[in-house]
Amino acid sequence: MVVRAAVAGASGYAGGELLRLLLAHPEVEIGALTGNSNAGQRLGALQPHLLPLAGRVLEPTTPEVLAGHDVVFLALPHGQSAAVAEQLGPDVLVVDMGADFRLKDAGDWEAFYGSPHAGTWPYGLPELPGARSALEGSKRVAVPGCYPTAVSLALFPAYTAALAEPEAVIVASSGTSGAGKAPKPHLLGSEVMGSMSPYGVGGVHRHTPEMIQNLSAAAGERVSVSFTPTLAPMPRGILATCSAKARPGVSAQSLRAAYEKAYADEPFVHLLPEGQWPATASVHGSNAVQVQVAYDAAAGRVIAISAIDNLAKGTAGGAVQSMNLALGLDETTGLTTIGVAP
Amino acid sequence: MVVRAAVAGASGYAGGELLRLLLAHPEVEIGALTGNSNAGQRLGALQPHLLPLAGRVLEPTTPEVLAGHDVVFLALPHGQSAAVAEQLGPDVLVVDMGADFRLKDAGDWEAFYGSPHAGTWPYGLPELPGARSALEGSKRVAVPGCYPTAVSLALFPAYTAALAEPEAVIVASSGTSGAGKAPKPHLLGSEVMGSMSPYGVGGVHRHTPEMIQNLSAAAGERVSVSFTPTLAPMPRGILATCSAKARPGVSAQSLRAAYEKAYADEPFVHLLPEGQWPATASVHGSNAVQVQVAYDAAAGRVIAISAIDNLAKGTAGGAVQSMNLALGLDETTGLTTIGVAP
Amino acid sequence: MVVRAAVAGASGYAGGELLRLLLAHPEVEIGALTGNSNAGQRLGALQPHLLPLAGRVLEPTTPEVLAGHDVVFLALPHGQSAAVAEQLGPDVLVVDMGADFRLKDAGDWEAFYGSPHAGTWPYGLPELPGARSALEGSKRVAVPGCYPTAVSLALFPAYTAALAEPEAVIVASSGTSGAGKAPKPHLLGSEVMGSMSPYGVGGVHRHTPEMIQNLSAAAGERVSVSFTPTLAPMPRGILATCSAKARPGVSAQSLRAAYEKAYADEPFVHLLPEGQWPATASVHGSNAVQVQVAYDAAAGRVIAISAIDNLAKGTAGGAVQSMNLALGLDETTGLTTIGVAP
Amino acid sequence: MVVRAAVAGASGYAGGELLRLLLAHPEVEIGALTGNSNAGQRLGALQPHLLPLAGRVLEPTTPEVLAGHDVVFLALPHGQSAAVAEQLGPDVLVVDMGADFRLKDAGDWEAFYGSPHAGTWPYGLPELPGARSALEGSKRVAVPGCYPTAVSLALFPAYTAALAEPEAVIVASSGTSGAGKAPKPHLLGSEVMGSMSPYGVGGVHRHTPEMIQNLSAAAGERVSVSFTPTLAPMPRGILATCSAKARPGVSAQSLRAAYEKAYADEPFVHLLPEGQWPATASVHGSNAVQVQVAYDAAAGRVIAISAIDNLAKGTAGGAVQSMNLALGLDETTGLTTIGVAP
Repeated sequence: MVVRAAVAGASGYAGGELLRLLLAHPEVEIGALTGNSNAGQRLGALQPHLLPLAGRVLEPTTPEVLAGHDVVFLALPHGQSAAVAEQLGPDVLVVDMGADFRLKDAGDWEAFYGSPHAGTWPYGLPELPGARSALEGSKRVAVPGCYPTAVSLALFPAYTAALAEPEAVIVASSGTSGAGKAPKPHLLGSEVMGSMSPYGVGGVHRHTPEMIQNLSAAAGERVSVSFTPTLAPMPRGILATCSAKARPGVSAQSLRAAYEKAYADEPFVHLLPEGQWPATASVHGSNAVQVQVAYDAAAGRVIAISAIDNLAKGTAGGAVQSMNLALGLDETTGLTTIGVAP
Repeated sequence: MVVRAAVAGASGYAGGELLRLLLAHPEVEIGALTGNSNAGQRLGALQPHLLPLAGRVLEPTTPEVLAGHDVVFLALPHGQSAAVAEQLGPDVLVVDMGADFRLKDAGDWEAFYGSPHAGTWPYGLPELPGARSALEGSKRVAVPGCYPTAVSLALFPAYTAALAEPEAVIVASSGTSGAGKAPKPHLLGSEVMGSMSPYGVGGVHRHTPEMIQNLSAAAGERVSVSFTPTLAPMPRGILATCSAKARPGVSAQSLRAAYEKAYADEPFVHLLPEGQWPATASVHGSNAVQVQVAYDAAAGRVIAISAIDNLAKGTAGGAVQSMNLALGLDETTGLTTIGVAP
Repeated sequence: MVVRAAVAGASGYAGGELLRLLLAHPEVEIGALTGNSNAGQRLGALQPHLLPLAGRVLEPTTPEVLAGHDVVFLALPHGQSAAVAEQLGPDVLVVDMGADFRLKDAGDWEAFYGSPHAGTWPYGLPELPGARSALEGSKRVAVPGCYPTAVSLALFPAYTAALAEPEAVIVASSGTSGAGKAPKPHLLGSEVMGSMSPYGVGGVHRHTPEMIQNLSAAAGERVSVSFTPTLAPMPRGILATCSAKARPGVSAQSLRAAYEKAYADEPFVHLLPEGQWPATASVHGSNAVQVQVAYDAAAGRVIAISAIDNLAKGTAGGAVQSMNLALGLDETTGLTTIGVAP
Repeated sequence: MVVRAAVAGASGYAGGELLRLLLAHPEVEIGALTGNSNAGQRLGALQPHLLPLAGRVLEPTTPEVLAGHDVVFLALPHGQSAAVAEQLGPDVLVVDMGADFRLKDAGDWEAFYGSPHAGTWPYGLPELPGARSALEGSKRVAVPGCYPTAVSLALFPAYTAALAEPEAVIVASSGTSGAGKAPKPHLLGSEVMGSMSPYGVGGVHRHTPEMIQNLSAAAGERVSVSFTPTLAPMPRGILATCSAKARPGVSAQSLRAAYEKAYADEPFVHLLPEGQWPATASVHGSNAVQVQVAYDAAAGRVIAISAIDNLAKGTAGGAVQSMNLALGLDETTGLTTIGVAP
């Protein structure tokens, strides 16, 4: 099979990571690469790490340029995907790496994004219960947010096994690439090196309703989420520390068993041996997810922690994994569980 | 006043930071500096940033060397302070920067440290209710742990004002200097740069009972603490993200009012203006504490966040602040609220 | 003495560092703080580490606002100082932290800066031969560039002692704060963390003629300089590795003797003991300069290496040191040789 | 072809990187993995990023364990390879990633390593003139040092084209993984983050004679090298800034032409477009080499700069590239020119 892929938004971090992965994908041929403000520039100047594509020139994001591909990836700012997607035919696979089609509840969308809801597409986190079958053969995929990927994979087994109360408390640290490539003062190297700081505190981060959606589906009841993101002095990686009160009767053993069951056959999720903890460096550049779970007996809480690469499994790797499913390829094609460390 | 100070354990990070602060203290004259494995070495080789002391040579930690000072600081590994302190007379001020005398409950000590309890000294966190008076004129001071400093100052006003339920969930990130200077593989620069990872998960970190002690005293009832520490890729700083379920009737306004009241007259605690969040870079090298509080209405939780320099306010700065009180000096003498940033 | 100081350009990194130092200066009272695009904003939002000034509001940079001070510091982009300085009377001390008045040769200025030469003021690197006397009592001071500070102090003793040939090869690494606070894509944390890269290669960096000026004066003949700056993944610090062919007869001993003589009485320059090498961390936040020199016998070259804090001794600390001399204060007033490490 | 490969020294950084690359090599099957102090441990605990090998257990480094493989990689401390290599038969391909067999001159070896010279093997830097043919079909390969790889590829085209005088001045910055995984105080994260520092100054670094050997061969005369390595606050990467006086008549054009000619057909060396400079982040995890050259007309010097990943092209990638040649495989098999950035 030769899958011809276009990437809209090839100059940003998500687009660059996607191209890195597509270059290693044995079935994909990279087609049109588009940008807006960067149209006309050489990719070698914008993404100097992608040597095989250094000579490629960005084109404008138009229906004509995106036409004639088997799959179109949209790595666009939130709110722009819907307009582009409308212009693409029903037979082309469209993988949206933005937020536009992730949420099921239009009210949630409007409350957190402040614009009309564009719709809901099959959700590209295959490890969630039921997600895989919705992705197989689909022509539309909504790639999850990076934080919801890390948090959902850390916590959902506790909810499907009914071991945790439906009030999750989450503190997650992200590398700076999660904030994108648009230059802003607080993202300067001088500001972020040597500093940890929170942002979007108090339930206002836009990934919150997506976490609630995923965890509630797993629990079979509404799960409240208190989510605090923090910016960490590293370019990549998310470490999500998630907890919830344990249901009566929960033990370290029952927790371990639930996670072992949930992840026994998952190719990308690695439940670490007892005593070993996730580290973002271990999944740098890889599609792997490190997960560990503990029972804090004194506080009576389930503590579940995951590490992902926010650009890989958290964005572009998740997109490729879902593309594989949508196209009927082996889900792991072109993806790796090997990190680049140290 | 001339206060002659000795430092036992001058080659480590806590000892080095203490010397940095004492050099800037107008009333202190630095006396004996001791080490164990490093006795006989020049301080210039061990602490090259302390230029005025570069020619000083470390002596062994013996009663003879420590005799003849007004204050003796103990920057020793946990469990070693008690033996040294016993040999010092009742008239010398002894400031223990280790854990030995922090806990009131001998059972807690034995459970978390695995050795007999040495006793309890006045607790060197002056901002806690009642702490200041116990420190004034005292001849013994137990300097708090770095995490308990950050966490207690983030949360106690919510407990004294009875705004939070007695179940705190805490995730805190620390710079690597908190793990000390003894070389271990997981603390190598190659390992920590670019990586976030948790440790001591599940209620086993030794600072947990100290947090419980402080928060319970503020609440007037036992507060349970679920504490997860994470190692951040930076040399200094702690960011503590603390939350608890809000009591009925709590609002953003009542929270703000409680924190404003608690910190109105505190020279080192800076309750940030609304909308601004703590950042460890802002308190780098300073004794200041940045605090902010929010009400997560959807999740019904109080979110309180603090940033400190783990070596300064979290260890050596706290020690100097308490020394000032014990000696009858102005509490702020020799300390600064100005950070070194960027 | 009470010295009333105004700072034009208080929102940038140089201005912020200057304020940090002035806050610790016993003779200085901080007067007007100005900005351009930031006028009207609270300093607490722009420089959150300067807690004592958090409530101050930036004013526009006008002659009226700057009037009535004993000293006016100009922390402005290159080319803007001259216009502001003209409006200040001859009796006020003006300390320019920009490049406008550093160069003696108008042709050099025009070649490297592309605008008419504004003039030459006494050069604020007191450690250079003859510099101190020109600064004492002066009403105008040109603060050196950060790289020229590091390079000149590393190499000039070899030139005054006629131990090195007049062709210097210099590679220096700077922390990102040297590039300023204006957000640019290549200065994002995501780009700089984990990366070393050169810039301004091939003799085009604007600090080159300033180095030539200083080293030529020391050598008594024109010294050519091949200078390559590199951007290092750290917020602060410059490490300058400087070399030149050794003159005949040079030995490790003669080099050491020349440097010992040059720096015997300098309060801020620390010639390290043999076998110890400079590290930028050791001078973080301090006005100290670490210098070491070696003789590479096989290659026949003098290797001189210095470490400074680019914002402190390299900019704001140098400015305060020169202000002290200009005002007749002790040169070291308000400055420290103690770094903040680790 | 199935190539069965053993790795002696699988627990260190070089061994880990080699395994990362071998896992992606389509012709290689990973056989025995050995360690010394770590024998008996799970690789998952030592190299947690190598998920597919997590369950493998390290064996002791003995002839029996290493027997029965097509290729044996030695990732051992300097001086240990010769003893192990002696026990391996002449028909097995032995790739030494240590220094033991790199130098041709026994006197150089003894002067810099202080032990008897073990011999000289074909040198694994295929891009050097004549190197490729010596590697093809060889049963022994000496992998170059990381610094000599970066430096030789930056400078040799200037020497083969006779554009540079035979006195090279080199300052190179390395990430901390180049110093290995053995814990030492100066390699702690607390020490290296935020700091640049030199080491091995004055011609004493062991990679110096290797650079001289390579550059002299290119120049056809002895080239002296003044080499200063510096430790940079990043885990990976080498940036080498190399210069030499230009020969008479050299111009920017003649330099560019020489480099274009040298690297026209090299799959891994990327001579950047004019105006673009190497950055270590761009080659993170890749076997690519970024090279740029400039002519500093005022100083009359050739400035050549390269960026490599010290663990990839600088060690393990170079080893695989040479293995490919030795085995008659396509030289690029299993290797990538795509970096992991940001």
